[in-house]
Amino acid sequence: MNATYENSRLYRLRHSAAHLMAQALTELFPGVKLAIGPPIENGFYYDVESPRPIKEEDLVAIEERMRELAKLQQPIVRKVAADRDEARCIILEECTLGQGEATAEYKLQLLEAVPDGEEVSFYDQQAASNGKVHRFIDLCRGPHIENTGEIEHFKLMHLAGAYWRGDVKNKMLTRIYGTAFESAEELETYLYNLEEAKKRDHRLLGRELGLFIFSPTVGPGLPLWLPKGAILRDVLTDFLRGEQLRRGYLPVVTPNIASHRLYEKSGHILTFREKMFPFMVDEEKETFILKPMNCPFHIEIYASQMRSYRDLPVRLAEFGTVYRYEQSGELAGMLRVRGFTQDDAHLFVRKDQLLEEFKGVVSLTMRVLEKLGLKEYRVRVGTKDPQSDKYVGDDENWQLAQEAIELACQEMQLAYEVSAGDAAFYGPKLDLIIKDALGREWQMGTVQVDYNLPERFALEYIGEDGKPHRPIMIHRAPFGSLERMIGLLTEQYAGAFPLWLAPIQVAILPIADRHAPYAQKLATILQGFASPDFKPDPELPEAPEVPGGAELRAQIGTEPVRVFVDQSRETLGKKIRENQKQKIPYMLVLGDRDIEAGTVGVRSREEGDLGAMPISEFVARLLRELR
Amino acid sequence: MNATYENSRLYRLRHSAAHLMAQALTELFPGVKLAIGPPIENGFYYDVESPRPIKEEDLVAIEERMRELAKLQQPIVRKVAADRDEARCIILEECTLGQGEATAEYKLQLLEAVPDGEEVSFYDQQAASNGKVHRFIDLCRGPHIENTGEIEHFKLMHLAGAYWRGDVKNKMLTRIYGTAFESAEELETYLYNLEEAKKRDHRLLGRELGLFIFSPTVGPGLPLWLPKGAILRDVLTDFLRGEQLRRGYLPVVTPNIASHRLYEKSGHILTFREKMFPFMVDEEKETFILKPMNCPFHIEIYASQMRSYRDLPVRLAEFGTVYRYEQSGELAGMLRVRGFTQDDAHLFVRKDQLLEEFKGVVSLTMRVLEKLGLKEYRVRVGTKDPQSDKYVGDDENWQLAQEAIELACQEMQLAYEVSAGDAAFYGPKLDLIIKDALGREWQMGTVQVDYNLPERFALEYIGEDGKPHRPIMIHRAPFGSLERMIGLLTEQYAGAFPLWLAPIQVAILPIADRHAPYAQKLATILQGFASPDFKPDPELPEAPEVPGGAELRAQIGTEPVRVFVDQSRETLGKKIRENQKQKIPYMLVLGDRDIEAGTVGVRSREEGDLGAMPISEFVARLLRELR
Repeated sequence: MNATYENSRLYRLRHSAAHLMAQALTELFPGVKLAIGPPIENGFYYDVESPRPIKEEDLVAIEERMRELAKLQQPIVRKVAADRDEARCIILEECTLGQGEATAEYKLQLLEAVPDGEEVSFYDQQAASNGKVHRFIDLCRGPHIENTGEIEHFKLMHLAGAYWRGDVKNKMLTRIYGTAFESAEELETYLYNLEEAKKRDHRLLGRELGLFIFSPTVGPGLPLWLPKGAILRDVLTDFLRGEQLRRGYLPVVTPNIASHRLYEKSGHILTFREKMFPFMVDEEKETFILKPMNCPFHIEIYASQMRSYRDLPVRLAEFGTVYRYEQSGELAGMLRVRGFTQDDAHLFVRKDQLLEEFKGVVSLTMRVLEKLGLKEYRVRVGTKDPQSDKYVGDDENWQLAQEAIELACQEMQLAYEVSAGDAAFYGPKLDLIIKDALGREWQMGTVQVDYNLPERFALEYIGEDGKPHRPIMIHRAPFGSLERMIGLLTEQYAGAFPLWLAPIQVAILPIADRHAPYAQKLATILQGFASPDFKPDPELPEAPEVPGGAELRAQIGTEPVRVFVDQSRETLGKKIRENQKQKIPYMLVLGDRDIEAGTVGVRSREEGDLGAMPISEFVARLLRELR
Repeated sequence: MNATYENSRLYRLRHSAAHLMAQALTELFPGVKLAIGPPIENGFYYDVESPRPIKEEDLVAIEERMRELAKLQQPIVRKVAADRDEARCIILEECTLGQGEATAEYKLQLLEAVPDGEEVSFYDQQAASNGKVHRFIDLCRGPHIENTGEIEHFKLMHLAGAYWRGDVKNKMLTRIYGTAFESAEELETYLYNLEEAKKRDHRLLGRELGLFIFSPTVGPGLPLWLPKGAILRDVLTDFLRGEQLRRGYLPVVTPNIASHRLYEKSGHILTFREKMFPFMVDEEKETFILKPMNCPFHIEIYASQMRSYRDLPVRLAEFGTVYRYEQSGELAGMLRVRGFTQDDAHLFVRKDQLLEEFKGVVSLTMRVLEKLGLKEYRVRVGTKDPQSDKYVGDDENWQLAQEAIELACQEMQLAYEVSAGDAAFYGPKLDLIIKDALGREWQMGTVQVDYNLPERFALEYIGEDGKPHRPIMIHRAPFGSLERMIGLLTEQYAGAFPLWLAPIQVAILPIADRHAPYAQKLATILQGFASPDFKPDPELPEAPEVPGGAELRAQIGTEPVRVFVDQSRETLGKKIRENQKQKIPYMLVLGDRDIEAGTVGVRSREEGDLGAMPISEFVARLLRELR
């Protein structure tokens, strides 16, 4: 939560909605003990202990009572207790609303926790209706809105358990979550996006689409990529490998472990220790460390030979798998894991190459985002905090790099914001923050200038003047990691990956068993080889040749289409539904008439049933979309 | 060393050659103290301490004196001492050859080490020549040949230091290595192969050709792959990925670490512990283990969903990087490392599929060896030792698997030998043992049947009968590992990799700076993109277009040719020599006449200077060789 939100009317509105909910609870669940009820990022909650247990099905009635109470237009009034004793009296006499002193248990504890000398305030709301007085008064720092009548657009969401004061040794309370907005549209959009996000949850889709699993035996945060997920990884890495090749990157491969000496030299043992896995220690052997980052390895490669100014820039790229010990509570599907493959690269450049190379990196990142269909993003330049002295490297170099980054943005006509103090201690950076289909922001590509590691490893190149100079390093990873990018793409596309990326691009659906051999012939043409596990039924006659097959094969060329022939013994309807669930871009239905006419019944994931078309027409369409 | 060798005449011959060398030393280096002089795998040595230091340049003279002494036809006579005292007398009086008792220092210690009751023998050789008696007698268990005249084909190799009794606390002695053979041809072949092996040493070539390095900071046995080595890896994996795709393998990707639970379940913690790296232990966290093998991960993937008999075989493939703690003394370049990438796959098959799948695996392995140009190999089938009870799985299954393996070999017309007792405890196997260009044997691909892991993990599939059945596993890795295979290929080809595999396939050599822009245009056509780091000299006129460029580009297609444009400011001669050292298959020399005529001067690595030819002719030649 940021300061802007905490100072907003929305924040106060949600806080008051929490009070309104508590008021409804005191009426519906007499004897309920209230604990705390703050506004939170997307709404509010209240933790309570009720003599009659609160269930999910009660939420409707609570919400209903909230609406009635809101409509009473109760003014919300702030009161300040003169001293602790008065505050205690108010809690015991007024806040309990005549339901007994026991209901004040948690409020009294909260009062004790208020520091001496601090003002103790209450918020009081009341109104009469049909001769009955409705009232609610709560120990609360506030602020609130002025009248419950303003609380119009809200919804109770779900229940959870929560320990009093977050301590497992305390009693488990019931936490009721709700949300509130200032307009009906905002509430609706929020609820809609929530539903959408559930449907797009990459953790569920990951299993449903056969992309990846987690295994408790292997351990949390350590994904196992299933075949379709492994194909996604291959397609993404092949794409980036090609883009990098034509930009002069050189591939390298380095181990997943190193002697502790490497990370002592790099300084990571001091600065990054908490994210490292436990070291591999054996008294009789040297200590090994599981790789948390690739940079020191690439530096070793740079330093393994004499470099001249003519050799620079040196751009070393690796799809490098690293391991970081995230707390298990922080793990979140593919978005935060303990083992992940970075599309990492390190550029070793001369001062006079910094601008050009920075532009090159940003332009590659743009190319990647464009190809992935991530079209909305903003650019943030992280610079030095002028007040702090935590930075390494001299001012002149920092100035040079910050100017180069801003100039790169300007020359590339990128709008950017400067965030002073957001730089790493070792250099300024540029972040790309992506907005996904649901409007959520994800920080993806970072391009980071580094003055620290070249210094620590005393890196050099021989300049035109014959003297040694220190290169500057740029770290970059357009995907961030394959794991995080595939998690994001799964949610962005709700699993319906674009054709070029889809693990299966075309599903062929023979209507009956007798169409299977022909379906296999078509598959052979599309993918360039016969499915090894197809055993034709010897009872069936040989299938006719696919018309123009050889020509189509030549047109498709060396890049095989990824095909699945559905030979399950299901009805066509069932087959279509199953392949729809798998979100396959094209389904080709094959029956007697198609085989006779040399057509296929084409169903596009986006456009629906396109009817029968000649196979050559479908292939032309496919290739047009792919290239 | 095996028993056959130790009982051979060659072994005795070499032992006698060691004595002959010692005899020469006593004559040339008076006062020399002899320690031990055994035959070894490829020859013999003697450890000595000489008052006048022995140097490499002395080896010629020593060898010369050996030849003279050999020609004296000294009979070699065995003598047995009656008791320890007599043995002591012989050492002090006869073995010292009048050079002083001090020379007997080590022999006396050796005598002391002979166990009580064991016979103490000497070997004595002598002859007179030109009135001088030459004699040598040595404390020795033997056996020897009968006459020094038989020692004809020998050579002294080199010197090394060796501690007396291999103990660093003792004195450092001089070890003189030599070799001897029964025929001149054998000696010549051995010396030739030794020279060849030196030239082919993949550790030297690895650095010279920019394939890989080791870094002491990263640690021994943990290679860092330089760009050209990384390209080799990519080409090899792309090739195998393609072959596996068309054989129905499914790619998967799994982590390099797992919770200790996984390896407890698999049993590897018990059976494989000594090869595992130290565990990652932290009291507050669970214990993690660096992956020594991929199988348990693939099993987790198999077990992550219900499998039916119709789903089998399931073939899961991964280029999986594993780590094994080899003792530092056992590390040997890429042939034995601590971290390596296996081209691993596990097949989960039904009993009735075992033969077919086994044949499929062997046939893929053959395809791989053929493509790599490894044409000489033998096949060994490892079966149960009928005497032992260490095996898991019931006899019937073993019988089935052993028969399937042999039948597979027969049906594929592979000659094979059966090695009883060579099976793993969990199943029989097939090994492919490759003979390289120097006649050295390398055990490469193993295909292993496994009854143990499916049992331990209680793997199942639902059979046609609706009941659960246990699948059989096959482990296989045609390359073994990328590291070992690239090490072998480097030695096999002495770094001159076949065109399809060569990290750089074509080097373009502009004769002068003014030809560079045209060279770049040619490179653009061959590789499909412009070199990003080429900055043309603005003084130079625009280069003409390459004739038929667009057509050539289309012919080459999506698979780019790997090109290097040599723009060093060296003479053409120097450029040619440098690129020859890099063993690049083709060099294209470009000068004024070539540019005018649309030709290139082609130099083939194998065929030498082919003269000028039209570019289209060269491209046709290239594509013919590549496809």
